[in-house]
Amino acid sequence: MRKLYSILFAATLTLLSAGAQVRNEIHVPDLGGYQTLKCDFHMHTVYSDGLVWPTVRVDEAWREGLDAISLTEHIEYRPFKEDVKGHHGRSYEIAEGAAGSRDILLIRGSEITRSMAPGHFNAIFLENCDALDKEDWHDSFKAAKAQGAFIFWNHPGWDAQQPDTTLWWDEHTEIYDNGWMQGIEVANGGSYYPEAQRWCLEKGLTMIGNSDVHNPINLDVEFHKGEHRVMTFVLASERSLKGIREALDNRRTIVWVNDLLVGEEKWLKELFEQSINVLEVKKGKTSCQITLRNESDLPFFLQKTEHDKALKYFREFTIEPRCQYTLTVSYPEDFRGEKRINFRVKNLLARPNQGMDYSYSF
Amino acid sequence: MRKLYSILFAATLTLLSAGAQVRNEIHVPDLGGYQTLKCDFHMHTVYSDGLVWPTVRVDEAWREGLDAISLTEHIEYRPFKEDVKGHHGRSYEIAEGAAGSRDILLIRGSEITRSMAPGHFNAIFLENCDALDKEDWHDSFKAAKAQGAFIFWNHPGWDAQQPDTTLWWDEHTEIYDNGWMQGIEVANGGSYYPEAQRWCLEKGLTMIGNSDVHNPINLDVEFHKGEHRVMTFVLASERSLKGIREALDNRRTIVWVNDLLVGEEKWLKELFEQSINVLEVKKGKTSCQITLRNESDLPFFLQKTEHDKALKYFREFTIEPRCQYTLTVSYPEDFRGEKRINFRVKNLLARPNQGMDYSYSF
Amino acid sequence: MRKLYSILFAATLTLLSAGAQVRNEIHVPDLGGYQTLKCDFHMHTVYSDGLVWPTVRVDEAWREGLDAISLTEHIEYRPFKEDVKGHHGRSYEIAEGAAGSRDILLIRGSEITRSMAPGHFNAIFLENCDALDKEDWHDSFKAAKAQGAFIFWNHPGWDAQQPDTTLWWDEHTEIYDNGWMQGIEVANGGSYYPEAQRWCLEKGLTMIGNSDVHNPINLDVEFHKGEHRVMTFVLASERSLKGIREALDNRRTIVWVNDLLVGEEKWLKELFEQSINVLEVKKGKTSCQITLRNESDLPFFLQKTEHDKALKYFREFTIEPRCQYTLTVSYPEDFRGEKRINFRVKNLLARPNQGMDYSYSF
Amino acid sequence: MRKLYSILFAATLTLLSAGAQVRNEIHVPDLGGYQTLKCDFHMHTVYSDGLVWPTVRVDEAWREGLDAISLTEHIEYRPFKEDVKGHHGRSYEIAEGAAGSRDILLIRGSEITRSMAPGHFNAIFLENCDALDKEDWHDSFKAAKAQGAFIFWNHPGWDAQQPDTTLWWDEHTEIYDNGWMQGIEVANGGSYYPEAQRWCLEKGLTMIGNSDVHNPINLDVEFHKGEHRVMTFVLASERSLKGIREALDNRRTIVWVNDLLVGEEKWLKELFEQSINVLEVKKGKTSCQITLRNESDLPFFLQKTEHDKALKYFREFTIEPRCQYTLTVSYPEDFRGEKRINFRVKNLLARPNQGMDYSYSF
Repeated sequence: MRKLYSILFAATLTLLSAGAQVRNEIHVPDLGGYQTLKCDFHMHTVYSDGLVWPTVRVDEAWREGLDAISLTEHIEYRPFKEDVKGHHGRSYEIAEGAAGSRDILLIRGSEITRSMAPGHFNAIFLENCDALDKEDWHDSFKAAKAQGAFIFWNHPGWDAQQPDTTLWWDEHTEIYDNGWMQGIEVANGGSYYPEAQRWCLEKGLTMIGNSDVHNPINLDVEFHKGEHRVMTFVLASERSLKGIREALDNRRTIVWVNDLLVGEEKWLKELFEQSINVLEVKKGKTSCQITLRNESDLPFFLQKTEHDKALKYFREFTIEPRCQYTLTVSYPEDFRGEKRINFRVKNLLARPNQGMDYSYSF
Repeated sequence: MRKLYSILFAATLTLLSAGAQVRNEIHVPDLGGYQTLKCDFHMHTVYSDGLVWPTVRVDEAWREGLDAISLTEHIEYRPFKEDVKGHHGRSYEIAEGAAGSRDILLIRGSEITRSMAPGHFNAIFLENCDALDKEDWHDSFKAAKAQGAFIFWNHPGWDAQQPDTTLWWDEHTEIYDNGWMQGIEVANGGSYYPEAQRWCLEKGLTMIGNSDVHNPINLDVEFHKGEHRVMTFVLASERSLKGIREALDNRRTIVWVNDLLVGEEKWLKELFEQSINVLEVKKGKTSCQITLRNESDLPFFLQKTEHDKALKYFREFTIEPRCQYTLTVSYPEDFRGEKRINFRVKNLLARPNQGMDYSYSF
Repeated sequence: MRKLYSILFAATLTLLSAGAQVRNEIHVPDLGGYQTLKCDFHMHTVYSDGLVWPTVRVDEAWREGLDAISLTEHIEYRPFKEDVKGHHGRSYEIAEGAAGSRDILLIRGSEITRSMAPGHFNAIFLENCDALDKEDWHDSFKAAKAQGAFIFWNHPGWDAQQPDTTLWWDEHTEIYDNGWMQGIEVANGGSYYPEAQRWCLEKGLTMIGNSDVHNPINLDVEFHKGEHRVMTFVLASERSLKGIREALDNRRTIVWVNDLLVGEEKWLKELFEQSINVLEVKKGKTSCQITLRNESDLPFFLQKTEHDKALKYFREFTIEPRCQYTLTVSYPEDFRGEKRINFRVKNLLARPNQGMDYSYSF
Repeated sequence: MRKLYSILFAATLTLLSAGAQVRNEIHVPDLGGYQTLKCDFHMHTVYSDGLVWPTVRVDEAWREGLDAISLTEHIEYRPFKEDVKGHHGRSYEIAEGAAGSRDILLIRGSEITRSMAPGHFNAIFLENCDALDKEDWHDSFKAAKAQGAFIFWNHPGWDAQQPDTTLWWDEHTEIYDNGWMQGIEVANGGSYYPEAQRWCLEKGLTMIGNSDVHNPINLDVEFHKGEHRVMTFVLASERSLKGIREALDNRRTIVWVNDLLVGEEKWLKELFEQSINVLEVKKGKTSCQITLRNESDLPFFLQKTEHDKALKYFREFTIEPRCQYTLTVSYPEDFRGEKRINFRVKNLLARPNQGMDYSYSF
């Protein structure tokens, strides 16, 4: 249905100097009285091995509806350093102005980049990145810790460093015991690491999910197909660096990777309940119709679990983002039991690789 | 970044019986104290030569954010009539229930389908479609008029009936003089008819724009590319059949076809002003920065016109839907004149094929 | 970067009478010396409970690159029958002309539509659909069989009929023993039924996958996101009804549902090998670089399995459709073993819910 | 129709180290016995005011199906020079390896960046970019000329430098007379400059069209909507730097900007004829049906012009890329004249702002 309008008088047009500016808000409910901030704590620019100028990361974040990012250049790996000069915190400095005018919270950070063990770690909330540039990795961690950094283990299941299994090494015990590890990436890029989730749950570490983007992000994420970057939802008492830090310290995060949501059960449960709005429950003699709307940008994949066999309802049910549905549950006219349907929300991972069980009575 | 999750336990999935339901609201401001209703008064189903069941038209309208539609089957052309039985208003009856539950206003209508002259006309707000099934077209118009119908000429520039120029025939004079014509389609499908706009302005007729869709609409309109169906914005005092009728009778319409908006100047002017939100005007000694946001789903294409040459600003400027921009106007430090930029909004057609001139002072 | 060209002289445009015609070929290799035909043997029109005119199904099939379809209206369920008249094979007759000019192979079929057991069955390659309109379902099957139909069980895991588990009923044994069942849908709509695959393997039945589309298909399948309808790849000795029938009778099919390919191992193995083109194998002292291109429209999801631990390579690897990759396998300089990488192709389901194991030596 | 497959055993996934590689070929016919190369001679990286690393430009070009590019950093404007060090040809050096392995022809170039007059010029086919770094712009041009560069004027209608009209200044006469200007950008970014086209035709200069991209290109061009970057089709005797240079010197170019094609009539005519494949001409007594297919990725917008009124055919007709159509021309049974339809191809601009007239007999 495309048409070309006559080109007579199609005057000389201007260069696109101003640039369209559109921010796509991510719809995720606030939980537990906290604000749900969308954060990505791991990415690169030309100041390490990324392929974009630092301000691009701010623009990308703004367009995608993020609240906070950290440019975490590799301390030990700067392949362009003959050309791109500056100290380890330089990309932060360059991006600072753009972040201010875009209202993106910018967190100073660096990536300690070692072979396994211990592998790669991000230290964020730094004051001085250069202090981490040490021969011995112990000294890098000490320097980060001395600045009060929040430190997490990156992509623990990366096959370049863990070719067969996602292992916890002695060095990780040492780091953990020294208080040098506050979290682990349970997701990086498009990958989810169930072992990392288990360790977080066992050891009281914060679950983190990041893009680790090196390319211009549109190359890695096909937004027009509904894809999104991996990110961490941080449940913060205020939209500020301080608010984020306090939430990270207290493990109030949910990780969004592909269609999966990874986190502690109490947050996932509330996330589900706050996202799904039950609009109407129409009860009849032999069936009940439940109309609901998913107010969030998250999908939910439901699968029936053990239940009263007299109740008949879906075996699997997909609730797409921002869509409305009517579900039917049918039963015999003389049904006297509790009207309760049970299902698993397969993509709410409260345990490693395991969906969250849920029950709904009406 | 796509990943496949392990398919062990990928249980048998349900048929999509419920169906995702998502309505895309169209963002257009209300104008003049009226509600801006989005309407399409011309479409077909299997009850004439369309290719879908009547309820499909309601579902399409709902998904696209429309408020009102009319199923206007051809009275004289029903190629499937050996198979698809029923009187001329049957598709209305079939769609009525769906329209009710979707809250789509359904207007009973028919298309009087004659060779040129007079060509095709839609009569809407009918009570009895069968009454229009007459040998002589005069009788069809009379029957429509007798029911108080609102009647408009369809696609006056259709090349199958007007192979070289869009002409007004004697028959149209007769119809007009008899009060059998209240409007004309200034746009149909993807086509805009400037002559029709001229006639509407000269003769006090209502400007109408419709899809005339026959196919499933997704075949004709590529929504994922940002396309939309042709429609009429009706400025109604209430969201009801009555409200629409009163607005049509009083010519309060704007037609949206491709990137063009066609209507009377006062509405287009208010449409522009209500759509563009000036967020900040930052005045300096030698330049002024104007930050604006387009709150609507409509684009605006600006082109500089005659102006004080001491003021320097864009030659052409495109304001995309729902985007934010900062414009700069510069001037000499000793500039003492009125700070006024002049431009034409090329896609606001207050006159046939002619953009609307606009002036902005700061 | 959108621009509007001046609209002066934007003459009256024509109705889109001709219509754009573009066919998207599906790239899947031919296998075993057979042609790979893309088929969908299950869909509906207004002649049962579908929402489109029969010719629409032909147009959809053509645009999507299909070779053959069957309009399988419900014999026992025609909700629009007061309006849409005609015998049970009428939609076939209506679509026949369009199929001829589009070169789509049209197979006469019907859906026997009973409550469970036995549920729904499609009989295709019929001569007379009306003969299946019987009170007792046994008589319907007999009538289909008498015409030499190919009969398959539809959506055996549909929760409306199998609310908790996908069960094989006594009636299915009876049907099977009578020779009234030649295949089963292992996929329908977006759903995959692993039990059905198991039954096909155990009982020598043909695996079928169909869309069962009722809506205009663009509503159910988001083509611009890379989605496709569920279909059956039929490995036929010729592109004809006869060729398809012979292939179905001899179980030469692969079912494509979402990102899964379901079929017998020999076909899946050849499908993988014919799709992946190894362009170059560059062997070094401590590593080997394998460059490959996926020539097909199918993705492949690889996951490392048991292997010589001295060889280091990916843990998971996604091969997107029509993309090129370079894989690296590294090993110690003194490695003397066989250079063989093992992995599972997770979405090639040769067994229910189980990926196909594969080995590659270099 | 999206489904989530069970996530039990969803093993830890690998980082996307290899990266999908897919090149989208641009379908444009070869013309006049020459190869049609797709070229973009104007773009920026972090070595001037662009926002990406030089290799990104090669990757973008490869994915988009280009044959040749030039990284034309501003000589006089390097806002990141405190951070990004290196001589004026450094981005070429960095990109060279990537260009080699991608088989992208990389042309050494620079942008002479002066205020108006003379404004901005690109010099390509340089040997030493640093030699252009001079105080006086005359010396920059001389240095480029001394190296045998091909020099063209950039964005002559840029409103920052030509606020009201696209003017030719005395300086341009001087440059032209000195042999320092071989071409002009008739298009830059999304803008077309009709005056530039006129000057090219009058003065025997080469018409050039370039992206002038600064951002990651996916931000400026929405490929999933069918958009493309502005580019120059170069009709070259061989796919080599030498071939491109010879073609530029002999003005064998066509510029593709939005839906417009700008060039000399003989090339546009052949482009149209080679793109449109007439598959069948079916002549009847009173009408003729012409079936054609557009084999190219270019649209064509036809508009009827003066013609024998006895022949009836479309008023406007849009031929979408890679689509097939059937056109009908009707005439009286006793028609004895020449069967010739006349139309303008509105988007083939052989003259400034003016479509190309065309005639087809059958």
